Amino acid sequence: MDLTPVRGCRDFTPKDAIARARVTDVLRSVFQKYGYPPLETPALENFETLSSKFAGGEEILRETYCLKDQGGRDLGLRYDLTVPLCRVIASNPRLAMPFKRYQIQPVWRDGPIKTGRYREFTQCDVDVLGVESLKADAEIICLAQDAFEALELPAKMKVNNRKALNALLEKAGVPKEKEVQAILSIDKLRKIGFDGVLRELIEERGLEEETARAALNSFKEFEGKNNEEKIALLEKKLGNCEGVKELKELLAFSNSFGVQDFVEIAPELARGLNYYTGTVFEVYALDNEIKSSLAAGGRYDDLVGAFAGRERVPAVGISFGLDVITAAKDFSVGESVAQCFVVPVKDCFDEAAGIADALRAEGVCTSIDLLDRGLGKNLEYAAKQGIPFAVIVGKKELKEGKVTLRNLKSGEEKLLEAKDAAKIILG
Amino acid sequence: MDLTPVRGCRDFTPKDAIARARVTDVLRSVFQKYGYPPLETPALENFETLSSKFAGGEEILRETYCLKDQGGRDLGLRYDLTVPLCRVIASNPRLAMPFKRYQIQPVWRDGPIKTGRYREFTQCDVDVLGVESLKADAEIICLAQDAFEALELPAKMKVNNRKALNALLEKAGVPKEKEVQAILSIDKLRKIGFDGVLRELIEERGLEEETARAALNSFKEFEGKNNEEKIALLEKKLGNCEGVKELKELLAFSNSFGVQDFVEIAPELARGLNYYTGTVFEVYALDNEIKSSLAAGGRYDDLVGAFAGRERVPAVGISFGLDVITAAKDFSVGESVAQCFVVPVKDCFDEAAGIADALRAEGVCTSIDLLDRGLGKNLEYAAKQGIPFAVIVGKKELKEGKVTLRNLKSGEEKLLEAKDAAKIILG
Repeated sequence: MDLTPVRGCRDFTPKDAIARARVTDVLRSVFQKYGYPPLETPALENFETLSSKFAGGEEILRETYCLKDQGGRDLGLRYDLTVPLCRVIASNPRLAMPFKRYQIQPVWRDGPIKTGRYREFTQCDVDVLGVESLKADAEIICLAQDAFEALELPAKMKVNNRKALNALLEKAGVPKEKEVQAILSIDKLRKIGFDGVLRELIEERGLEEETARAALNSFKEFEGKNNEEKIALLEKKLGNCEGVKELKELLAFSNSFGVQDFVEIAPELARGLNYYTGTVFEVYALDNEIKSSLAAGGRYDDLVGAFAGRERVPAVGISFGLDVITAAKDFSVGESVAQCFVVPVKDCFDEAAGIADALRAEGVCTSIDLLDRGLGKNLEYAAKQGIPFAVIVGKKELKEGKVTLRNLKSGEEKLLEAKDAAKIILG
Repeated sequence: MDLTPVRGCRDFTPKDAIARARVTDVLRSVFQKYGYPPLETPALENFETLSSKFAGGEEILRETYCLKDQGGRDLGLRYDLTVPLCRVIASNPRLAMPFKRYQIQPVWRDGPIKTGRYREFTQCDVDVLGVESLKADAEIICLAQDAFEALELPAKMKVNNRKALNALLEKAGVPKEKEVQAILSIDKLRKIGFDGVLRELIEERGLEEETARAALNSFKEFEGKNNEEKIALLEKKLGNCEGVKELKELLAFSNSFGVQDFVEIAPELARGLNYYTGTVFEVYALDNEIKSSLAAGGRYDDLVGAFAGRERVPAVGISFGLDVITAAKDFSVGESVAQCFVVPVKDCFDEAAGIADALRAEGVCTSIDLLDRGLGKNLEYAAKQGIPFAVIVGKKELKEGKVTLRNLKSGEEKLLEAKDAAKIILG
């Protein structure tokens, strides 16, 4: 029998699962600090929902795991958390606006397996619905800044506006009907570079070479400039463009919220999905080796309303990639959550169990030997598990109403009361 | 388009999702207090794994959602967390024993929909592998006692031993080859009562009426007795039976760990799954209206080794049902995680955003008006969301370097510095 996980999926044994839990705990606490409550939706969606023309598009639909239930209903595993959000909003018309939520759940895509690409991965989405003002975009940006600070993961956010990008492309001579296609290629600039995108624009998207070069060169002019200079250049190129005005306003609001150097205007930033309508952003690690974005999102004012078949519901959100974030830094804190390992010396199990109980009552995460192993074997096991302390309980200790606390790194031992041992263990 | 969740599955909008997160946070912290680290496995498993003859059995397999990936591989959604655990152990032969883990993830069963039965539900499993001694069973029982105390959900645990149950059935004249089938019916005593089980034993399991009555009556003799009296009666009926010896030893170890009134010996307790080999237990709410068990489990010494095709790996574990636990008590703490709502009075947004930032830095979960609504509408929105405080920021307040803190329940207002407001909000 094949005992490996399903192709493209992974098991997270304790060391990795502890790191993942640490990251999601940090993200959750930041999301909640901004007043976002959780939402949970089922892994399965009706296929009709997933294949809505307003949803993720053809490419993503091709990668959807499809199945039928026993009643013959066509179902699929969700490929993102945005479609379920739209469905929830559409089916709960009485939810008060603004509606904020975070959602941390896995999604599935039956796509090609490349380095760092998996068929099951976890998204951590934060969205606010019902707010037209760019204050919402600024709040999300500020939240993202806080999140990466809390994760102690140095990162910056590239920000752009779809309306500004469209205006730049138009100015370079890209025909309106080829804009969406061109954007899909431009989105790959960071991954396949200038020449790669140029080739795609000409060969796959059907642009004239001159137009393609003009478009890509117009982005080059922004290189090495700071945000103010980029805005000035955009204004010079595009005049009184809505997208540029929005970028300026967004920067001002972000400033009010306390966003500083985190944001970098990036006129070439596209974001692959075609439902974005204004602000788009992408967070990348300052460590250049990590190519994938750590988080990304933007404003999608038309999607929710189209889905619900009712009036427009403005929306903006960001999705943090749990897998790329945990891969970007070592978040592990050892293989064990136990802070101490109680070792009962021969015939002292009953008393040792009582001491384990007392340590837990003091808030110490406590494991205890259940195998009647000898002292040496127990200390070896505990150290291998990454447990920092052993609490040894033998006749000698019990006679004095104390325990021996052993620091498993230094080997230092102390005879003291269980309560005092708990204090030292908890630091 | 049908916007309801997939049949048998549910959305958890903020109020419910907050309650669920609260329960899993409590459970997680108890599991970790006993030194159990997390494990995560993929939702999808190879169908071959799920259909292993050592796994959940035919009934559960009929309820498995099946699908193929694009490579034509036969997959299924996991129906429990025990099979993935067995697979992980089997595929990681170097994991140090004892191996402890908890796992909180959804499982799927495409079965009939009844009250309180869903096709997606979340299990919270805790297991310890590699320990032959009943100390492990006692640790799990103690952990369960702690968990329900921490949840403030009054509950008791029925405990039995499969070997004792088998001996009782044998004594009543149930033929060895009908034992497993009979146990499946006896497991329903709480749900369908004496007469219901009697009928099943005769009509579906093929027992003689006399034998069926004898078996059920032998359980009746234990009614109204305390644990010591039940053990004495078991010893009188079964003599030097292995199962009874184990029950006695289990009670003694549980006592050492600090388990008191939580455990109740229940000689009729069967547990439906046929892989249990010794201890079995089931936690029920003291509130009699809740019929389903809140948590259940037992010892399964043969399963892991059979799965791995190698030597026996003794194991014992418990599964907490997140859905039944959250249904058993109101764990909700309002619809909002925000502790205060910042209301910028006209033209004061920038300053108000700065104050929101400062409140968050003090650790207050803070939401802020993004819609430029008037004071009245904002207070109404915040109160409706269940947010306890509003922080009003206007010209008057800013002139004094203060904010107005309004208690949204009492309507009481105070003019004070943001830092002092934070202290009051955090209690």
